[in-house]
Amino acid sequence: MIVDVSKKILIVGLGLLGGSYARTLKRYGFHISAITKEQSSIDYALEENIIDEGSTELDEKIIKDADLVIFALYPHVFVEWIERNQSLLKSGALITDVTGVKGSIVYKIQSILRPDVEFIAAHPMAGREVSGVENSTDKMFVGANYIVTPTKKNTPDAIRTCMELGRLLGFSNVTTLSPEEHDEMIGFLSQLTHCIAIALMTCNDRENMEKFTGDSFRDLTRIARINDVMWSELFVENKDVLLSQMDIFIDKFNELKKMLETEDVDGMRKMMRHSTERRMLFDKK
Amino acid sequence: MIVDVSKKILIVGLGLLGGSYARTLKRYGFHISAITKEQSSIDYALEENIIDEGSTELDEKIIKDADLVIFALYPHVFVEWIERNQSLLKSGALITDVTGVKGSIVYKIQSILRPDVEFIAAHPMAGREVSGVENSTDKMFVGANYIVTPTKKNTPDAIRTCMELGRLLGFSNVTTLSPEEHDEMIGFLSQLTHCIAIALMTCNDRENMEKFTGDSFRDLTRIARINDVMWSELFVENKDVLLSQMDIFIDKFNELKKMLETEDVDGMRKMMRHSTERRMLFDKK
Repeated sequence: MIVDVSKKILIVGLGLLGGSYARTLKRYGFHISAITKEQSSIDYALEENIIDEGSTELDEKIIKDADLVIFALYPHVFVEWIERNQSLLKSGALITDVTGVKGSIVYKIQSILRPDVEFIAAHPMAGREVSGVENSTDKMFVGANYIVTPTKKNTPDAIRTCMELGRLLGFSNVTTLSPEEHDEMIGFLSQLTHCIAIALMTCNDRENMEKFTGDSFRDLTRIARINDVMWSELFVENKDVLLSQMDIFIDKFNELKKMLETEDVDGMRKMMRHSTERRMLFDKK
Repeated sequence: MIVDVSKKILIVGLGLLGGSYARTLKRYGFHISAITKEQSSIDYALEENIIDEGSTELDEKIIKDADLVIFALYPHVFVEWIERNQSLLKSGALITDVTGVKGSIVYKIQSILRPDVEFIAAHPMAGREVSGVENSTDKMFVGANYIVTPTKKNTPDAIRTCMELGRLLGFSNVTTLSPEEHDEMIGFLSQLTHCIAIALMTCNDRENMEKFTGDSFRDLTRIARINDVMWSELFVENKDVLLSQMDIFIDKFNELKKMLETEDVDGMRKMMRHSTERRMLFDKK
């Protein structure tokens, strides 16, 4: 194991994701500390024994002690934190993140970061419709994907360490992509799906529809319960990619609409068989 | 109970839905018979003790015996069955169905049906991504909605009986809508969602995406595994309604796209908060 349990891990931002990281990593015996906004989150995490120490302040000792720092913050808050506070980090520390966009974040952080601290970016592809450390769980990452997005600035050691972190957290698939590949993939698989869910959820305000719905509408709108601050920021940070993915979807949707208009049953059936075939690839193994 | 257990129930079309009806109703002690295409379905259902008798032929005795006949067939097959075989039905029999479109079916059947047999239409809002009586279950309808779609031709007795059937089957909500209201509701809640899922699933053929996906894409495409014969028929049968629902969705999707283009974060956040608020209505109670 590259990440040995004598290493001290600091989590900055103890919400659903940060809390689930803490809860899962604590089982291995790591020393876990946390810095977060709310005292209630620290109190809860101490009571639950998922962190060893924590603070709502920029506690210099906690920060200086950490060998590995995991940032679970909104993108712009993460960048600001590094700009303002990176002098507090231990020399030789490794830092990573959970940010859902990479291109606009990774190069920026790496370009401003001290040379004796390394940033290796990662995106845990997991979430829930609830937030806060109180909803964290050590089962959150089973069956999920963890994407590490190294750049030329990263060392092989840091990449290996980050991938091992993903495996320790329980992710079923740990892979690497360039920041650009990541953003294209996520623009399609995650951001576009959220755009669709939001549009579907808000395009028809008829009352009492919940009395008549089946599971398909519920499934398509599960993610329509959305953190507006975070997602509007993620959308804008990945704007060009997301806009082109939206176009690709609209084109195909209009193709289906045209086939329905002309009652091209053969065309619709062909698209449905293609759809059925491709969907099988996405079943959880 | 209006539907007393001495009544004989015939199910025409013993697939996933027909089988789940048989399995659930058998528990109450009804005499259940079935007519379906495949001998293997009959054999399975007899072995599992979910029907009392069955045939792949138009067994005149079975049909003549039935007080209640449930048609679980594709729309055009149902209409053809009535056209060809309604003379075999018992005088005074009540017939119902599971068809996913109503406007184009209900009036047609009622206009051609013998005056001594009554058709009361219903739509069980439940489905799975598997088919066949082998996948049927008596838990399928828990938490689901059952919509009865009476017309002026229906008697209060038949409407009450059909609603009671929905409750006996275990549906959590049993309601009535006119065929037109039903088709509008279903065009939005079910058919539009399937159109979206198909378009999303087929608009990007990039390989290996399953290694990078989170649950949101899986959720939005669960129903992209689709029975092409049945759904293309349902789409065409409800064409005008579905086309207008597709337009409503595209308009809202384009509204979001325009906000992203202009980086109107306030507008996006407002739409997301509206989305979040509306989604709460759709949680299963």
